[in-house]
Amino acid sequence: MVNRQWRVARPVQAGERIGAAHFVLESAPLGPLEPGQIRVRTHVLSTSPAQRSYLSAARSMHAKVAVGEVMRGRGVGVVVESRHELWPVGTVVNGSLGWQDYAVLAPEAASGGILHLERIREPVEPLARHLGVLGSTGATAYFGLLDVGALKAGDTVVISAAAGGVGSIAGQIARLRGARVIGIAGGPEKCRWIVEDLGFDAAIDYRAGDLGARLAELCPSGIDLYFDNVGGTILEAALERLAVGARVVICGFIATDGDDTAPGPRGYKNLLRRRARMQGFFIFDYQARMAEAEAALRGWYESGLLKPTEQEVRGLEHMPEVLAGLFTGENRGVALCRVADLSLRDALHPR
Amino acid sequence: MVNRQWRVARPVQAGERIGAAHFVLESAPLGPLEPGQIRVRTHVLSTSPAQRSYLSAARSMHAKVAVGEVMRGRGVGVVVESRHELWPVGTVVNGSLGWQDYAVLAPEAASGGILHLERIREPVEPLARHLGVLGSTGATAYFGLLDVGALKAGDTVVISAAAGGVGSIAGQIARLRGARVIGIAGGPEKCRWIVEDLGFDAAIDYRAGDLGARLAELCPSGIDLYFDNVGGTILEAALERLAVGARVVICGFIATDGDDTAPGPRGYKNLLRRRARMQGFFIFDYQARMAEAEAALRGWYESGLLKPTEQEVRGLEHMPEVLAGLFTGENRGVALCRVADLSLRDALHPR
Repeated sequence: MVNRQWRVARPVQAGERIGAAHFVLESAPLGPLEPGQIRVRTHVLSTSPAQRSYLSAARSMHAKVAVGEVMRGRGVGVVVESRHELWPVGTVVNGSLGWQDYAVLAPEAASGGILHLERIREPVEPLARHLGVLGSTGATAYFGLLDVGALKAGDTVVISAAAGGVGSIAGQIARLRGARVIGIAGGPEKCRWIVEDLGFDAAIDYRAGDLGARLAELCPSGIDLYFDNVGGTILEAALERLAVGARVVICGFIATDGDDTAPGPRGYKNLLRRRARMQGFFIFDYQARMAEAEAALRGWYESGLLKPTEQEVRGLEHMPEVLAGLFTGENRGVALCRVADLSLRDALHPR
Repeated sequence: MVNRQWRVARPVQAGERIGAAHFVLESAPLGPLEPGQIRVRTHVLSTSPAQRSYLSAARSMHAKVAVGEVMRGRGVGVVVESRHELWPVGTVVNGSLGWQDYAVLAPEAASGGILHLERIREPVEPLARHLGVLGSTGATAYFGLLDVGALKAGDTVVISAAAGGVGSIAGQIARLRGARVIGIAGGPEKCRWIVEDLGFDAAIDYRAGDLGARLAELCPSGIDLYFDNVGGTILEAALERLAVGARVVICGFIATDGDDTAPGPRGYKNLLRRRARMQGFFIFDYQARMAEAEAALRGWYESGLLKPTEQEVRGLEHMPEVLAGLFTGENRGVALCRVADLSLRDALHPR
């Protein structure tokens, strides 16, 4: 039994795309556990634009990952060996497993951290759901809209990267809460998907140009809530169309990620003119309220009102490409990497 | 009896300083009143950076004033002739009097508007107080800090244009509510004034350079509330020092006023990194809560806790210079123009 591990090969330079060149896949034998430790078999790993910052010198609120270390990343897996009596074999967990087949974790040490390791008490199949619609991606959409964005029924909501992980869930939640939802996405296929499959009221293909005119046409009374995942010129176009009292929720700025010298959005003065607010948030700050989001997301999902949008690529060997896809716009939905080609049942009841 | 009136002579061009060249002083005879009208003798007029936008083609939330019209502006005065029984001679009013000795107003017509005409039931001497610490300048500071900025005791508060009208009152209110207050102002004399006379904890002279280093030194745990009147590079410096959960209150952006092509503040990404919010507001939106602010301001003022900061220039003929001074940084406190050289007692009891 060996443990395949993606380690950081070199840092990301300013302006550089992250990809396969920044990582190296190595194998290590599985060592013995110490008291208090557990071994988790990774089933599926998630991706986040923030992961680029782990390898860059740019300022960030995230800790760095040094060259030679296993790449940090969240995933869902199953405890396959345990020296901690509260975390027995068969426990399904969600946490910072890293880009590897097996993670050795010490639950006690992790408990003071943020979202490092949680037990999934009622796992659903596939486990990918717990990284998507039922996990922190879903919770990010939920708190971003409802808490930071103070969503009200009847609001006109615009979401950038609407075919991405958070965006594809945020649009559905906004609809469920009585808003009119316009998604901005790249290319006609993503636009078709968010309208026809996910139920957005309308979509704008930003690659077709004329974003400002399309926003004006689709939001004649202005934008009440703009949920931004991208920054840059798309944020500027949205700021031009704010309604009085609008809320701009900053979930990310992938368009200018890693570029701290970029100026801010041209239309920030509209925050005064439209008496609007722009607010950033981070899901880790909502840990104390996570059960609220999980219950709501699960209820919507189980009643068929919230469609899962996870997309799994199979094989740990593809992990760097899956991350790279966040920045090229190739991904759709919540981009995940399936590491163990086992069903949950197989994992819990090995023959 | 003639009525001197400042009329708009020409529009303000993009990037141009506003001043005497944009106005012309003319005299007109006083005409008869129609039923429902009152004539108000202007005692004192206020200024606001927003007044520049009345004459410019730049986008603004304020109505324009056309060439040839009397310049719009707020003031306090006394009814000297009345054909409206609810507004008898001797009524002291605060409203949109315009840059002139006498204003003819129709209180009924104005009642649907915003802050166009109010009765001052308990006038204080000098009437300038009602345009400063007891008026909408004070209320702007009050709601900006307490409502938009959600000020908490113990906050580290930074205020730009701290020696200006709103800033000089906001700093005092923040201190009264238990905050530590650092003011940013231009020049050593203004810095001395806000610390020694107004009780700010510290001041930074932005003209001395090194604003970022001084903010770092004076705000070692970051800025909890930044009350911004200027925008531009001072806003950028403050965004660099935000504490987690910070509130940035946008009251104005005089540094780049009228320039809609200017990019936004470079540090806007810190709104995400520090989970902070930036929000614009406008005092007209608080009309329904004005009594709350007035009661608090009056209480502080009458108990000597809140020092008035009005500064009166005497003579309507100086009005354009007083407005120009807002943009050159020459003014200190709430910049007013004293139009009638009468005490309130003289005005109410003419011999």
